[in-house]
Amino acid sequence: MPPFDVPEGDPFGPHNLPYGVFSPAGSTERTVGVRLGDHVLDAGAAARALGSPYASLLARPSLNPLLAAGRTTWSDVRRALTAWVTVPAHQEAVGAFLHPLASVTLHLPFEVADYVDFYASENHARNVGQMFRPDAADSLTPNWKHLPIGYHGRSGTVVVSGTDVVRPSGQRKAPADPAPVFGPSVRLDIEAEVGFVVGVPSERGRPVALGDFREHVFGLCLLNDWSARDIQAWEYVPLGPFLGKSFATSVSAWITPLDALEDARVAPPDRTHPLLPYLDDAQDEPGGYDLRISVAINGSVVSEPPFSTMYWTAAQQLAHMTVNGASLRTGDLYGSGTVSGPEPWQRGSLLELSWNGRDPLELPEGKRTFLQDGDVVTLSAWAPGPGGTRVGLGEVSGRITASAVV
Amino acid sequence: MPPFDVPEGDPFGPHNLPYGVFSPAGSTERTVGVRLGDHVLDAGAAARALGSPYASLLARPSLNPLLAAGRTTWSDVRRALTAWVTVPAHQEAVGAFLHPLASVTLHLPFEVADYVDFYASENHARNVGQMFRPDAADSLTPNWKHLPIGYHGRSGTVVVSGTDVVRPSGQRKAPADPAPVFGPSVRLDIEAEVGFVVGVPSERGRPVALGDFREHVFGLCLLNDWSARDIQAWEYVPLGPFLGKSFATSVSAWITPLDALEDARVAPPDRTHPLLPYLDDAQDEPGGYDLRISVAINGSVVSEPPFSTMYWTAAQQLAHMTVNGASLRTGDLYGSGTVSGPEPWQRGSLLELSWNGRDPLELPEGKRTFLQDGDVVTLSAWAPGPGGTRVGLGEVSGRITASAVV
Repeated sequence: MPPFDVPEGDPFGPHNLPYGVFSPAGSTERTVGVRLGDHVLDAGAAARALGSPYASLLARPSLNPLLAAGRTTWSDVRRALTAWVTVPAHQEAVGAFLHPLASVTLHLPFEVADYVDFYASENHARNVGQMFRPDAADSLTPNWKHLPIGYHGRSGTVVVSGTDVVRPSGQRKAPADPAPVFGPSVRLDIEAEVGFVVGVPSERGRPVALGDFREHVFGLCLLNDWSARDIQAWEYVPLGPFLGKSFATSVSAWITPLDALEDARVAPPDRTHPLLPYLDDAQDEPGGYDLRISVAINGSVVSEPPFSTMYWTAAQQLAHMTVNGASLRTGDLYGSGTVSGPEPWQRGSLLELSWNGRDPLELPEGKRTFLQDGDVVTLSAWAPGPGGTRVGLGEVSGRITASAVV
Repeated sequence: MPPFDVPEGDPFGPHNLPYGVFSPAGSTERTVGVRLGDHVLDAGAAARALGSPYASLLARPSLNPLLAAGRTTWSDVRRALTAWVTVPAHQEAVGAFLHPLASVTLHLPFEVADYVDFYASENHARNVGQMFRPDAADSLTPNWKHLPIGYHGRSGTVVVSGTDVVRPSGQRKAPADPAPVFGPSVRLDIEAEVGFVVGVPSERGRPVALGDFREHVFGLCLLNDWSARDIQAWEYVPLGPFLGKSFATSVSAWITPLDALEDARVAPPDRTHPLLPYLDDAQDEPGGYDLRISVAINGSVVSEPPFSTMYWTAAQQLAHMTVNGASLRTGDLYGSGTVSGPEPWQRGSLLELSWNGRDPLELPEGKRTFLQDGDVVTLSAWAPGPGGTRVGLGEVSGRITASAVV
């Protein structure tokens, strides 16, 4: 079957066209690729062959130039790509630049500037609150319904799907221990999240309004915020998570442009508390996205977190992140926070799925509370597309390897 | 007086030679400069004129190539520069590339990769603990003496000395308020810190040992971690500071190489708790630095924090930051945390100096608890140098401007 004839119902059909960076077989050169079914289009080469003005944005080793180009250009490039892969007259010229997906090497698709992680699922925050503050009157902290809680993570350890994750070592201390002990984490976890990629920068001192979200954010990806719960528990008071998170954060190799997700937009859950004006989206277009996530360990699906249940939207997170005048840069990445739905089988972390280790998961290869060396965790997702199609998100996968420190 | 004849006792004499990035008068081109007294040497131009092999590291718009070059090259370049500005035979050739400091524009000297901030002064941590947890049995959290507490900050808003700082707006909520309110911060503060600049990267999964500090860290600078205490207090539980800090962090325009600070090395305070092996520096060379910091508001010195009192050293911070396998990149910056000595006049924040607003400072222009619009805060410092000299650190200064959001 020729590459253009993507099977009907393929979630990576011409209605999707996510962007990545790849090297063809036998080459180490990086260039922008667009996924079409089980092929990758060398977008820069195709642009050059067709005399497109976008070659200068696409024949590049990272998505950053395209990210910086702005919303009008994003739409124009997407329209051009759609034509190249759907108009029969172009297919012969473009066909020469299609590579089988299995033959290429996929890279981190953009240079990560700042990385911020949020905490926007009410179900997740309540689950964590119940586990760690069982005596509190409310499982949410007092600020939770007033602002999207977030913090900065380590951008230098954001890695692309497929990269092994070395089990981190560090200090941990159980309440009964007289002093902390050192060693490989024994409570290594995942967090199933969605990551948003900033394209257009903003000026320091100038907040980005809720309504300007689409002017700045180019697209989204799946994100696994690996977490060492034992390290995190001992270190995080009073300044937040640090080494419990900073060893690795995995993102998918494909960035789905927001333009591909128009049919997935949904209203977020009803707000239970009045919001300050800079966060109040009651009059805005729907700010949520209906993304159906699957979490698999060694191929067994253990959870299906629904992104539509997130209390805070990506637009609210962007408005909050900049309301103090913090500027944005091309390549800023922010995670939604762990996606957990209301049902037990919709939880986005092993901490919640095993209820802090009390209820092990039954996998074909044995019981799991937290991750064992050799485990492979894969997040995948799809969203409703035009005309009943599905828009696939690139998967994010990572295998745990033994700690380098003994 | 010719530029080479730096007055005896000048803290920026040829024993110092800090690095920065500047544009000469009338130019927007950036290049590496080395400070000599009240002049700046265009180091790349001098290197070229003298046929030095280091021209390729110095005729650059940022310090990053020099930072990445490694410890042997750092020493070699410093030796070469010392010769150029002290050996009479070179002075005529080199003299043509000296610019009066007052005539040049100074830039952020390196591209900041990740920015981490620590919390390493016991006096500061105890002062904050007493103010905010007055009923706690210990003013330190249980982890404080076991690990250097740190968290990631926003690298995209690190700015060079002289850059105005816009007063941030945000949410705040006093305990008695029924709901949060929005507006310009009314508790805008400073944190007097020292920043360490990473030159040589490390591999993901491979911790950097205590003894390898000097292989990775190039030098240090003064750092002002501007802090909006009201925003911070409302947002920081449970994931740490975010918008209370992310609007701006100022660093000095000059990076002092560690090689210039050999005579300033001192042992850190006695450790009161046993340390895990990866942090135990009892058998190592002295890990502290005797830096005498001054904090001035509108020209009036309000505090003199002694860096020698810091409990955790920069080498311990680096070992901790990487013990989980987190990698380093060229341009990583980490702050020491607020430097506060044991005496009231040695405190490095207005929060402490005014004891949470209870005891206003008396300045010639009026009382201050926190900063007012128009206030200029300047941190300066010196360290003991060879033969009784002083090694000056570049000052870090910033003026508060009115909030952009009303």
